Amino acid sequence: MTDPFVVVGGDAAGLSAASKCRREHPDREVIVFERGRWVSYAHCGLPYYVKGEVDDLLSLTTLSPEEVDDRGIDLRREYEVTAVDTARRTVTVEGPDGVVEQSYGDLLLATGARAVAPVDGVDLEGAFTLHHMDSAAALRAFLSEPGTVDPATVGDDYTDESAVRPYAERAPPETAAIVGGGYVGVETAEALAAWDLEVHLFQRGDALLPPFGEAVSEVVADELRERGVHLHLGCEVKALDGDGTDRLSAIRHTDGETTAEAAVVGVGVRPNAELATEAGVETGANGAVAVDEYGRTSAPDVYAAGDCAVAEHVVTGRRTWVPLGLTANRAGRAVGATVAGDPTPTGGVAGTAVVKAFDQECGRTGILDHDRAREAGFDPVSETVTAGSRSGYYPGNADTTVTLCADRDTGRLLGGSVVGTDRAAVRIDTVATALTGGLTVDELERTDLAYAPPFSPVWDPVLVAAKVVSGSVA
Amino acid sequence: MTDPFVVVGGDAAGLSAASKCRREHPDREVIVFERGRWVSYAHCGLPYYVKGEVDDLLSLTTLSPEEVDDRGIDLRREYEVTAVDTARRTVTVEGPDGVVEQSYGDLLLATGARAVAPVDGVDLEGAFTLHHMDSAAALRAFLSEPGTVDPATVGDDYTDESAVRPYAERAPPETAAIVGGGYVGVETAEALAAWDLEVHLFQRGDALLPPFGEAVSEVVADELRERGVHLHLGCEVKALDGDGTDRLSAIRHTDGETTAEAAVVGVGVRPNAELATEAGVETGANGAVAVDEYGRTSAPDVYAAGDCAVAEHVVTGRRTWVPLGLTANRAGRAVGATVAGDPTPTGGVAGTAVVKAFDQECGRTGILDHDRAREAGFDPVSETVTAGSRSGYYPGNADTTVTLCADRDTGRLLGGSVVGTDRAAVRIDTVATALTGGLTVDELERTDLAYAPPFSPVWDPVLVAAKVVSGSVA
Repeated sequence: MTDPFVVVGGDAAGLSAASKCRREHPDREVIVFERGRWVSYAHCGLPYYVKGEVDDLLSLTTLSPEEVDDRGIDLRREYEVTAVDTARRTVTVEGPDGVVEQSYGDLLLATGARAVAPVDGVDLEGAFTLHHMDSAAALRAFLSEPGTVDPATVGDDYTDESAVRPYAERAPPETAAIVGGGYVGVETAEALAAWDLEVHLFQRGDALLPPFGEAVSEVVADELRERGVHLHLGCEVKALDGDGTDRLSAIRHTDGETTAEAAVVGVGVRPNAELATEAGVETGANGAVAVDEYGRTSAPDVYAAGDCAVAEHVVTGRRTWVPLGLTANRAGRAVGATVAGDPTPTGGVAGTAVVKAFDQECGRTGILDHDRAREAGFDPVSETVTAGSRSGYYPGNADTTVTLCADRDTGRLLGGSVVGTDRAAVRIDTVATALTGGLTVDELERTDLAYAPPFSPVWDPVLVAAKVVSGSVA
Repeated sequence: MTDPFVVVGGDAAGLSAASKCRREHPDREVIVFERGRWVSYAHCGLPYYVKGEVDDLLSLTTLSPEEVDDRGIDLRREYEVTAVDTARRTVTVEGPDGVVEQSYGDLLLATGARAVAPVDGVDLEGAFTLHHMDSAAALRAFLSEPGTVDPATVGDDYTDESAVRPYAERAPPETAAIVGGGYVGVETAEALAAWDLEVHLFQRGDALLPPFGEAVSEVVADELRERGVHLHLGCEVKALDGDGTDRLSAIRHTDGETTAEAAVVGVGVRPNAELATEAGVETGANGAVAVDEYGRTSAPDVYAAGDCAVAEHVVTGRRTWVPLGLTANRAGRAVGATVAGDPTPTGGVAGTAVVKAFDQECGRTGILDHDRAREAGFDPVSETVTAGSRSGYYPGNADTTVTLCADRDTGRLLGGSVVGTDRAAVRIDTVATALTGGLTVDELERTDLAYAPPFSPVWDPVLVAAKVVSGSVA
C-alpha cells in the first residue's frame, strides 16, 4: 500500500487535484488539509457578493465539504500544515487535536496567495483586503442597514462570525476608499458605487489596470468618472487613519487627506511559498514555487500548483507567476492526473484576464508591455484601433478598442487587449487562442472569424487591428 | 501606360479590390462595371431590414457611388459585362449607350452568387428570394400597412420602383411561408414573426441549419416553435400556388397544402460563373471559378474573388466554395493588393458562420460532418457538452452547448459549433482561431482563455468541450 496523496490547501488547485486523482485512481488515499473553514470558493466572485448582485455567499463555493467527502477525499478543515520534511516524506499538521505527522507518497502544495497591504492602518475596523470570504461577508454587512445581516447565519457556519459581528450593527459608511487601481480596485469600485456611497479610488501610478495597457486604462478611467467614482491617479496612500481610535476615519495620501469610513486595499498578492522554502524547495519568479511542466518541484514527489506556483508563459517560454483561477484549476487537475499515473502537462499561461468595469468589458492576454517584450528578445510594435462590435446599421453596435502587440521582425503576435461595452471581453479569447497557435499577425488577419450583423461587422475589431499591425511589421 | 484594372461586379469583393488597388497604386486606372443600380450592399443585413429593426435600406450599403468616385474608381452602374476575351484581353459591356469593348490589364471577376429557387410559382406576386435589396424593399412594403411605404423614395433612386409598387397598396399578408431552413430561412422566420403573422417554415430534411450540426439544429427548432413559428420538418414544398391568379395563395407540399399570401424561398445559392466558363476559364467546387491562393484563375491576369470563386479550406487544404461576406471582402482586398504590385494571399476559409435565431446565437466553423471529414482523410470523433456561459452564481448565466469534432488519430481539431443565448456566437471565433493554428484538442484544452464571473465560468464552455473530446482521441 502506497502512502497517501497529500494536498495542502482546499481551494481551486488543491481540490481539482484531489478530485481528479480519486476519479482516475479510486483506490488511492487522498487527504486534503485546509487551514480555514471555507473550501473551493471563488475569489473572483467576491466583488459581486459585495455589490449585492450575488445574494448568497455560499453560492460562491463550487463544492461543499460534503460533496468533497462524496468524492472519497479525506478533507480536514482547520488543519494547518506547518512543515514539510522532504527527506522523511512527511508533513507536520496542527489541527484541533494537536500536532501530528502525516506521511505522503505524493505531496501537492496548493497554498495559494495572500493579499499584501503595505500600508499602515490596515488593521483598523473598516479596512478590508477582500481576498477572503470572511472579509467579503464583513464588508457586505458593513454596507447593509444595521440589523439586516445576522453574523451567525451569513455563509452558514463557514464564516468567522467574529469578523462580521463588528459591522452588523453599525450604520453603513457614507464614504469609502479603494487603495489600488488593479482589477480588485476596479471591480470594488463598481461594487461600492452600487451602495450609493461617495467612492474614492487611489492609484499610485497614472494608469488604472496597468497590465491591460494604456488604451484600456483610459476607457476605464472615463467610465469610473462617469459613474461618479472619484479617481485619484498618481496619488500614493501613506496610511489609513483612525484618528486615535480603532476605527478608520480617513485616508492620508500624497495630496492630503480624504474622509473614509470604509476602505478596501487591493494593491497586489504574494505567493504563499513559505512552507516550500522552509522545506528547501526551490522558488522562482516572484518567489513562487518553481515547477516544471508537470508541476513537479525540486523535491521528489512534491508538486505545486495554483497561486503559489509558477507556470510557463506561452509567448516567452519562461517561467512566470500569474495567479489566476483557470490556471489554478487546470494545473491542479493535471497534477491529480499525473499523480494517478497519467502524466499530464499543467499547460502554459498567457496572462489572459478579463475585468468588468461597470458597463465596460476589458480583456488582455500575452505581452503588451514593450519593456517586457524586449527583455524576452522581441522587437515590439503595437497598434490600437477602434471599430464597431456589430454592423454599423445594427442596433447595439458599440465602439470596441483593440490593441495588438507583435514582433517587428517575425510578425509574431505577442499580446493584445480589448475594451468595449458590447461583448468585448469574450473577444480576447480569439487573441489568446492565436497566441497558443503561435500565429503571426498576418495569419490572424486571414483567420476566418464570424460575421453576422447582430454579432460582428464584416471585419471583426480583432481583424481590423491585425490588419493595421500587419502594416507595421516586416 | 498599362491597360486598366477592370472589375466585374460592384459589391463586396469587387469594390474591396478596386479600393485597395487605388490606395496602393493611385495612378492605376480602375473601372468597375456593375449591372445593377445598388453597389456595396450587405446581403446579410436584409432580414433585419425586413424585420423592421433596421429602418433605412440605404444604411445597408457600405459605400455610396459618390464615395466610390471619391476613391478615384470609375464606377459604371447598369453596365453588364456579357463576355470576356482572354486572348485579346477585352470584355464586352452592354450599357445605357449600347455595346462597347473594354481592354484590361488585369481583370477581376466578382460576379457573386444568386439564389436558386427550384420550385414552381416563384414568380407569383407575394413570393420572394430575399437575395437582393429590391426584393427586401418589396417584402417590407408588403408587410407594412398600405400607404406607409412610398415606392418612389424607398432606398432613394437605387431601388427598382416597379418591384415595390405592387405591394405598397396591398393589405399585409396574414400568413407567410418560408421555404428552406438554412440561415436565410431561420433569419427570415425571426423577421416575419416580428410582424405578427402566422409563419410556416418548410424544410425538406429533418434538421434546421444542417451545416451547424445536430445540437444547434435542435436548440433552434425548439426556439422557433416557442416563438410561434410552425415548423414543417421533413416536408418538401412541391409548388407555390396562385390558384389560377398571379398572386400567391398557398404552398403545396408533401403533407398537403398550407395557406400563404407571402413566401420567402431560401434554399440555396449558386455561383455566377457563366461569364468565366463561357470565356474558357476553369471552374472547381460547386461550379465556382477555380483560383489559386492569390485569386488567380486559369487565364492570365484574370482573377476571381467572392461568392463566385472557390477558396482553400484551412482544415482540408482543398479548394471549396463557401460564399460568405468576410471571405469576399478579404479576397477582394488581397486581389487589389496583388494587382497593385504587392502579391497577397486571399486567405483560407473555415466556413465560419454565425446566425441569430430569435434569442439563440448559433455559430459553426470547420468540419462537423463526419462523412465530409472521412472524405478528407480524417477519422472523426465529436462530443457535445452543455455548460454555463458565466459563473453559475452570476446573473445572466445561460446554457451554452458546444460541439467539437476532432481527428481520432492525431487529436487535431476539425471543427465546432456553439449555441446559446448569452454571447454564444462570439465564442465560435475561439474555435475558428484554433483551426487556423492547427491546434489539437489537447492544445485547445490548455489554452489560457478568459475567466471572470460576468463573462465566463472558470472553464469556458469551449474548454469543457475540448476536455471531453480529449478523452476520446488517441
